[in-house]
This record gives sequence, structure tokens and C-alpha cells, in this order.
Amino acid sequence: MSAVVLGLTAITSSLVHAADPLPSWNDTPKKESIVAFVEKVTKSGSTDFVPVPERIATFDNDGCLWSEQPMYFQAFYIFDRIKALAPQHPEWKDKEPFASVLKGDLKSALAGGEHALLEMAMATHAGMSSEEFDKVIRDWLATSKHPKTDLRYNQMVYQPMLELLAYLRSKDFKTFIVSGGGIDFMRVFAEETYGIPPEQVIGSSIKAKYELRDGKPVIVKIPELDFIDDKAGKPVGIYQHIGRRPIFAAGNSDGDFEMLEWTTSGEGPRFALYVHHTDAEREFAYDRESHIGKLDKGLDEAPKRGWTVVDMKADWKTIFPDR
Amino acid sequence: MSAVVLGLTAITSSLVHAADPLPSWNDTPKKESIVAFVEKVTKSGSTDFVPVPERIATFDNDGCLWSEQPMYFQAFYIFDRIKALAPQHPEWKDKEPFASVLKGDLKSALAGGEHALLEMAMATHAGMSSEEFDKVIRDWLATSKHPKTDLRYNQMVYQPMLELLAYLRSKDFKTFIVSGGGIDFMRVFAEETYGIPPEQVIGSSIKAKYELRDGKPVIVKIPELDFIDDKAGKPVGIYQHIGRRPIFAAGNSDGDFEMLEWTTSGEGPRFALYVHHTDAEREFAYDRESHIGKLDKGLDEAPKRGWTVVDMKADWKTIFPDR
Repeated sequence: MSAVVLGLTAITSSLVHAADPLPSWNDTPKKESIVAFVEKVTKSGSTDFVPVPERIATFDNDGCLWSEQPMYFQAFYIFDRIKALAPQHPEWKDKEPFASVLKGDLKSALAGGEHALLEMAMATHAGMSSEEFDKVIRDWLATSKHPKTDLRYNQMVYQPMLELLAYLRSKDFKTFIVSGGGIDFMRVFAEETYGIPPEQVIGSSIKAKYELRDGKPVIVKIPELDFIDDKAGKPVGIYQHIGRRPIFAAGNSDGDFEMLEWTTSGEGPRFALYVHHTDAEREFAYDRESHIGKLDKGLDEAPKRGWTVVDMKADWKTIFPDR
Repeated sequence: MSAVVLGLTAITSSLVHAADPLPSWNDTPKKESIVAFVEKVTKSGSTDFVPVPERIATFDNDGCLWSEQPMYFQAFYIFDRIKALAPQHPEWKDKEPFASVLKGDLKSALAGGEHALLEMAMATHAGMSSEEFDKVIRDWLATSKHPKTDLRYNQMVYQPMLELLAYLRSKDFKTFIVSGGGIDFMRVFAEETYGIPPEQVIGSSIKAKYELRDGKPVIVKIPELDFIDDKAGKPVGIYQHIGRRPIFAAGNSDGDFEMLEWTTSGEGPRFALYVHHTDAEREFAYDRESHIGKLDKGLDEAPKRGWTVVDMKADWKTIFPDR
């Protein structure tokens, strides 16, 4: 092929891309409604025009940007970490929920819900410096694989959502993660994986302190709860970190309900999106009865409130990025 | 003057501006060192080159971006607010520190230090929604004047620092405020005054909750301490909000010491700047003995650590912007 033809191909493909910012989305009314919203709020002179600084978009992470079954990926990390640290903690053999983790009984380990998970997170992170923590997560991500798909966890991100993030940013939106997951856990991979810098990641956190270790300043994590960024905590996290109400929000569970409610109750044009897990074959199918990512109230309320519910099976051409 | 000449003037002035990004700074070694730092970290191919996402610059607010004498401007606001709310709080007449404020005895009111100020801040803000709070601050800023200068408080910002912020942003730095002041107090004016959006303002905070009032979602401030963003709290605030170590930091007091220490102890090129209040005529002169903005340890340590100490009297051509 000649260089001229190659050049033309490149131009054509960039035109196609410009015409379709969401190529992994099927051409359904869901996709149309997203594009229509973005166009009207970014078209200067439009009555719905939103100035650039107010173009804030917030996304849940677990189940919205990457998978969350059969349990939150951060729980896999915490369990791996407990196993790695067990030799230094002989007392864990007789102490729940650690004992169940070490026996491989994950169901019992998780029976205590988020509280038990948090206790394990604090026990495995306390005393670690921010640099040590970063390295441990980075190593874990590079060496661990999902039990069902055999993929690295950060390969189990949703291609259609990556396109949506990029599309919004191309229209001068600032994209944020607002998740119940650990803020510093997500920050390790959010920039590389989603193009979202650490300062735009909001999550649950434990406290930290500043100290000198051998004369060198470090930030050290301490085993004290700081903030739970879930349910009614999400609008509060948005308020404390962003200080401005989003105009676009996406989630996938009842834990995101208040974020979507807060977002859509502002004046002017607003967009709320629920990702509905309907594809047992390509990913997972769950909603009202699920222990992880339960979507019940949200499914009832979304149609009444004009929120868009994306049906992963029907609305998405692909789920995970090609490798 | 003809249009051609006018056009030439515009071009010339933009060339001059390009040549001197800091026109309100005298041509001293301090200014040179700032420009040299910014040029080396932003010049592609330079061994000191810093990629755009890592160009994080943090600035203290009180005494660094705007004045802080004879007391923090937020304290003036809190005192005004106590007077306004006094009719609804008859018990304040007999309760310190409120009683002293109502008697106009500001010295006694402030005798309890930051703790007393915080108690007053919480008492005057609790139960307020984020929208109400925003409006109250906006109205106060528009109607209040500084007792010495008769200027609006947000006119008492430092022109040379405004230029520094704009210069850094023109080189793709992301500029943040990291201040002991109230995070939501500063967010009301930071965007308009400094070009710093709310999501890049970090400060002290009280807690907040999300609730429905008459079916309408609101964020309500509650009288419980959340975080004090001062001294060793500043690197922690940076960690929790930004998640990345700055390469440039500016402050003016010992309360900024840890932020400058944390910033400069990272690898690669770093810049730390102290604003030293030396100009009693054009602003205020204070350092080692001051109750507000005490700069003592910092003055001793700065030369040993290679931090730049800006002498307001000698290094700045102007202090406040022309009106």
C-alpha cells in the first residue's frame, strides 16, 4: 500500500473515530442519550451550555469501571496480604476473620461484611509508609490473576467505560473516581489504567501521619478509620474533595444511589448512568440479590428519575479491552 | 492612534510579558532562581525534566497568597458571624470565647488560640447547608473591609504571587492551595481570586453529612472536627487529597515547615519558597515573635536546606494588585 493510501486510511479512521466516540457501544438509545447530553452541554451558545470548570464527572470503580465478582478485587489483595504476613502474626491463626482467610474459607472471612474487610485492611496496612504501600500494590497487580478469567485484575476493566471516560475528557470534562474502595489502593493504577490522576481519585481511607524515619520524612498509614466513601458518604466525599456538584455520575449499585441523586438534583442538565450487570457469559449477571454490588432500589428508581440503565449484554459490543 | 499601531503595541506587550513572566518581582536572584527552576523542569530533553502530571505546586494561603494581619481574615468573618447570630444565642453572652467577641475584646477571644477559633467556627457553621454557607461567605466578602487598609479582603492578595501561580500554570503545573484555613471558606473565592478551582483547595475541615430536607438532598455541616491542615497535617492533607508529592511548595510560616520539608525531600529537582513579611510600610513586618504566621524555625532552616526566602520589601515591586 502506498504512503498516500496509508495516509488516507489514517484520516478516514480518525474521521470515523470523531463520528463515533464510543465504538464499543452498540447503537442503542442509551448511547444516543449519552452523546446528546455531552453535545448539548458543550456546545457554546446552547441554552444547556456548561462552562468547562463545572464539567465534573464522577465514576464508581468496582462494578462500574472494572469487575467486582466473585468479590471486590481489593479483598483478593487483602487476603493475599494476610497470607503473606501470617508468619509475623501467629495470633491470626485463632482470630477471626484472619483465621478463616488462612484456612481458605473466604465465605466465612467475608461474613462480617465491610466492617470485617476494613479491619483486615487496617491490620495489613498499618505502619506502612506510602511508598511501601504503593510498591506492594504494584507488585501484587503485576503478579496476581483473577480466579475465573485468568486475567490480571487491571485487565478486567470495561472497554466501553474507558471510551466514555476518554470521550468526556475530550470535551473538557474532569473525570473523577468516587468509590468505596481504598483511595490509595486505586491511586496506584488509576492513572495508567483509566487516565485518572491520583488527585481525582476519591475513596475510603484510613488515617495517616507524617513522621521522620532515620531523619527521612515519610507518610505512615495508621489503623484508624478516616472515611467510608459509600452510600450517603459519596456526596460527602465529593463535597470534601471536589467542592462542586458533578453534572454526570455513573455507578452500578445501591451504594451509588446517593451520588446519582445528589448529581441529578442540581439545577441545569444532569446525567446519571447505572451499569447493569446482565451478561453472565462475557462477565457476570447479578443485581437485586447480590451480596456484592447489589442493585435493587436503583433499578426501581432509575426509570422514575430519568436515569439511564446500561444493559451490558445488549448495549456493549465488547466488555474487556483486546489484549 | 491607528489600529496598526494599537496592534503593534499589543504584540510588543505580549512579547514583553513572554520575556518576563513575573513583572512585579524585582530582578533579584530570588526571581532568577524561580525562573531557572521552572525552565529546567519543563524543558523537554533536560535531565531535570518533570512530566506534566507530576508538576504539582502547593501554596499556603494566609500570609502567602493574601495577608493575615492583624489576624486571620477568616477570624474576622467568624467574629462578624457571631455578632450576627448572637440574638439567636442568648447563652453566648456568658460563654467564652463568644462573650469576649460580643464585647469587642478580640484579644481575649483569641487567647484560646486555634482551638477557640475552631470552636467558634463549628458553632457558627453547624447545621448550615453547603449552599447556605457559600452564600454567607460570598455576601461577607462583598461587604466587609479590612480595618487597616479599607480594602476588601480578597483585594489583599499578593500580585507577585498571582503572577507566580499564572506562570506555573502556563508551564502546565497544577496549582493547589494547602492551608490551615477552612477548606470551604477558601473555595468560595479561590477560583475567582487565584484561578484555583475548588477541587485544588485543601484546608482544615469539619465533618458534613448528606440528608434530605423536604425531599431535597443537601450537604449539611456538622460541628465535629474532621481535619486540621497545619504543620505535620499539611503533608498528610497533600497525601489524602493529591496522592502525589509536590515538586514546588510555598509558605510563609513555621506551619508550612513540614510541607516544604516533604516537598524537598523527594528525588529530583524541588523548589521551596518562604514569603518573609518585611514590609511594614506596604504591608506588615513580622516573623519570629508573631502570634500569627510565626516564622522562626523556618528562617533558621531555609538557608541550610537551600530554600528560597523572599524578602517582600526587597524582592517585590508591588504588593497588592492595582484596582
